[in-house]
Amino acid sequence: MSLYIGVDLGGTNLRAAIADTDTGQILHQRKCPTLATEGQVAVIGRIVELIEELTRECGMPACEIKGVGIGVPGTPDIDTGVIQFLPNLPGKWLNVPLQSIIEEKVKLPVALINDVRAITLGEWIFGAGRGCDTLVCLAIGTGIGGGVVVNGQFHLGIGGTAGEFGHHVVEVNGLPCGCGGRGCLELYASGPAIAAMGVKEVMHGHTTRIGELVDHDLNRIEAEVIVQAALEGDAIAKDILHRVGTYLGIAVGNILGVISPQKVIFGGGVSRAGDFLLKPIVQTVHERVHVIPVEKVEFVLAELGMQGGLIGAALWAKRRREGQ
Amino acid sequence: MSLYIGVDLGGTNLRAAIADTDTGQILHQRKCPTLATEGQVAVIGRIVELIEELTRECGMPACEIKGVGIGVPGTPDIDTGVIQFLPNLPGKWLNVPLQSIIEEKVKLPVALINDVRAITLGEWIFGAGRGCDTLVCLAIGTGIGGGVVVNGQFHLGIGGTAGEFGHHVVEVNGLPCGCGGRGCLELYASGPAIAAMGVKEVMHGHTTRIGELVDHDLNRIEAEVIVQAALEGDAIAKDILHRVGTYLGIAVGNILGVISPQKVIFGGGVSRAGDFLLKPIVQTVHERVHVIPVEKVEFVLAELGMQGGLIGAALWAKRRREGQ
Repeated sequence: MSLYIGVDLGGTNLRAAIADTDTGQILHQRKCPTLATEGQVAVIGRIVELIEELTRECGMPACEIKGVGIGVPGTPDIDTGVIQFLPNLPGKWLNVPLQSIIEEKVKLPVALINDVRAITLGEWIFGAGRGCDTLVCLAIGTGIGGGVVVNGQFHLGIGGTAGEFGHHVVEVNGLPCGCGGRGCLELYASGPAIAAMGVKEVMHGHTTRIGELVDHDLNRIEAEVIVQAALEGDAIAKDILHRVGTYLGIAVGNILGVISPQKVIFGGGVSRAGDFLLKPIVQTVHERVHVIPVEKVEFVLAELGMQGGLIGAALWAKRRREGQ
Repeated sequence: MSLYIGVDLGGTNLRAAIADTDTGQILHQRKCPTLATEGQVAVIGRIVELIEELTRECGMPACEIKGVGIGVPGTPDIDTGVIQFLPNLPGKWLNVPLQSIIEEKVKLPVALINDVRAITLGEWIFGAGRGCDTLVCLAIGTGIGGGVVVNGQFHLGIGGTAGEFGHHVVEVNGLPCGCGGRGCLELYASGPAIAAMGVKEVMHGHTTRIGELVDHDLNRIEAEVIVQAALEGDAIAKDILHRVGTYLGIAVGNILGVISPQKVIFGGGVSRAGDFLLKPIVQTVHERVHVIPVEKVEFVLAELGMQGGLIGAALWAKRRREGQ
């Protein structure tokens, strides 16, 4: 048994778990609301509290826990453990040395990693990517993130930035993106993008089911609502997911051309749309990509759900501690 | 000294060299016209002849030469040594077991590889990519090809297809491509694409210098002519290279997001445009890419010229022989 704590710092919830990194088993887990608007000091306090509670409650001697990995919604400097910027979390996370702050409080080695890179690591070792030499993972939620494993190595690139698929350009003269670029995938295929398409269709009177599902309160339309309407057979909702899948397919096709992986794993909240999303993605890739043997590539859904990021963060803590 | 023969099967010329794979030094080289329209039997005959001439003329005992690597303009199956298809070479290269045919004739181990993957390997070990852990190489010529090195490993992907940048989609609803897809980079930034832009500008009467350089014979306009006109200050030629560089920049930006390399190397005939191409590429990347620390990425020209592919093919033969 090799116990590490994995933490997922999400925009809505803060989750933490004690995982056995030898088996991928989660022994104990907790969550609480992030309440990011209360600012970083409050959030950091909650992370420390969560780690201390887990350690107390799990029934194992504290000395058995070897370290903490924290998945954050942004790109921390994995070498210094400093967060430069968290675009999707309120509370001025500018140049916060999160690693050393938490280390001092919990007296354990701490390692930071991007949240989707953590999911990639978790899915590779214990989930949908088990035994795979080269794979790509895309997580589609509030944003779109990713991670890559190449030739049996978890590949991070400069400062841990490999796998930034959310800002893959799919429309050369497209919409301006918050990142400073334009035409980024995130603008056409993330949860908020899907919700916005739904709102537009409802406002144009093209669909009734999406509106009904939120009692005609357009503010409540989220990607999940579109997925639900599609599941219930709404043609417009299916069409939205088809358009989204096409954009994802274009980006995935381009990614295949770069590293020609054996497997592409789709995770994140939006991936709960399952075949409504996977089918147009795979169809687009098959229609468009002819220079890679697409028939040899597997397109699959993530297997570990919310636990993927927790297990991955724990695995990351272990790898850093062991100097990998 | 570790001697291997590298062969480059090009659309116009067939080149071969004896290289010392320990130092990257080329001891002796030859070339002859490919004359691809004469068909594969004639071309294979010329490859064998070239190898035999090199061996005879180099002044080394034949037994010193350990193997032959052949770079081909397409994607050979690197495991079986069979060429399935060479899109840019006339003469029905369908399912040709080139490796075993040549092995039987020259009595040496033979290994096939895509021509730009060979350039990538050559530039990585002895050229512009020396000492680099993670890099991307793009060769821009009649087509656009590429190769990748990730975490100190020459990465090939399924059947050697990693690095197919010519078919990276840059215009989602763009022109149909010979590959079966649409909007591929090759349609907007290869040598023939650049020539076609030049022809169009001349026909519209927008430039005089391009026409003058070919004595007003539009059939003679090639990418080199546009580059020459740009070097001489022709504003339209410069604008063409700027548009081309912008498309290349979009694709390069996307590739950065996948593997976040330390270096991007540009080779191939079109890269002789130098700064006229490199500047708009780098400018586009800096304008568009904000999720990768672009300032830490080096954008450089290939250093080995035509020899890169030959040294790379020789290195590939060595790697295959040594089971790498």
